[in-house]
Amino acid sequence: MTEASRAEIERAVLSANASFYRAFSQGNFAAMNALWAVRAPVACLHPGAPLLLGRDAVLGSFRQILDARPTFVLRCEAPTAQIFGETAIVYCYEAGADQPAHLAATNVFVREDDAWRMVHHHAGPLSNPIPTRTASSLMN
Amino acid sequence: MTEASRAEIERAVLSANASFYRAFSQGNFAAMNALWAVRAPVACLHPGAPLLLGRDAVLGSFRQILDARPTFVLRCEAPTAQIFGETAIVYCYEAGADQPAHLAATNVFVREDDAWRMVHHHAGPLSNPIPTRTASSLMN
Repeated sequence: MTEASRAEIERAVLSANASFYRAFSQGNFAAMNALWAVRAPVACLHPGAPLLLGRDAVLGSFRQILDARPTFVLRCEAPTAQIFGETAIVYCYEAGADQPAHLAATNVFVREDDAWRMVHHHAGPLSNPIPTRTASSLMN
Repeated sequence: MTEASRAEIERAVLSANASFYRAFSQGNFAAMNALWAVRAPVACLHPGAPLLLGRDAVLGSFRQILDARPTFVLRCEAPTAQIFGETAIVYCYEAGADQPAHLAATNVFVREDDAWRMVHHHAGPLSNPIPTRTASSLMN
């Protein structure tokens, strides 16, 4: 893989990752539903919660979260993508509207129908919240 | 992929996952080091801790944990594997020696040199510990 094509793939993966946080923060279930893989198996570990396996369980949980009003803003901080062929992982921190990042996340994507689709989201609490500026500068 | 070859791949991936918990519980750094990918990029999110990126940071953290004596037993409960071509994810719960599972984990493996090698470990606390029997029966 050339450096240029790797950079292009990373941009596409980070764009898919950004879609997750946009759909989440806008309470847009249709966008969230469209982001997750349809044929590849999916799973989710919400903070503190037991494993959700399969599209019904995972998307059902997001419908419940995203249908709540007012919507809950979740910002993505310092995302970094690692590519493994047709699979990619984005590591990032997650922060509330005006708060320092309080969660660390693993987001896994696979190539499906010519798009990067999510197959796994795992978020867990940070013992010490990471201030926005520090989180953002980690990868820059 | 046939059902038989899928089952075979799952067994190999679950065996690599078991190697992680065996190396951890035996305080065997050499085995842990051999398990992690050498060419593929690696990362780790220990419970509550910020992201570790790259082999030096990740294996450095495991050397510190595994060199501690007495060793710290970490049992793997209810592992389930999902295969994405040359990448695989194992979801499982983690428990101390005689305790209910108190962590949920995402372990990612890639095919490298004809073996399944670890590229990511993410463990985070469960709000409510899961008794061993429940955890084990989840996937059976």
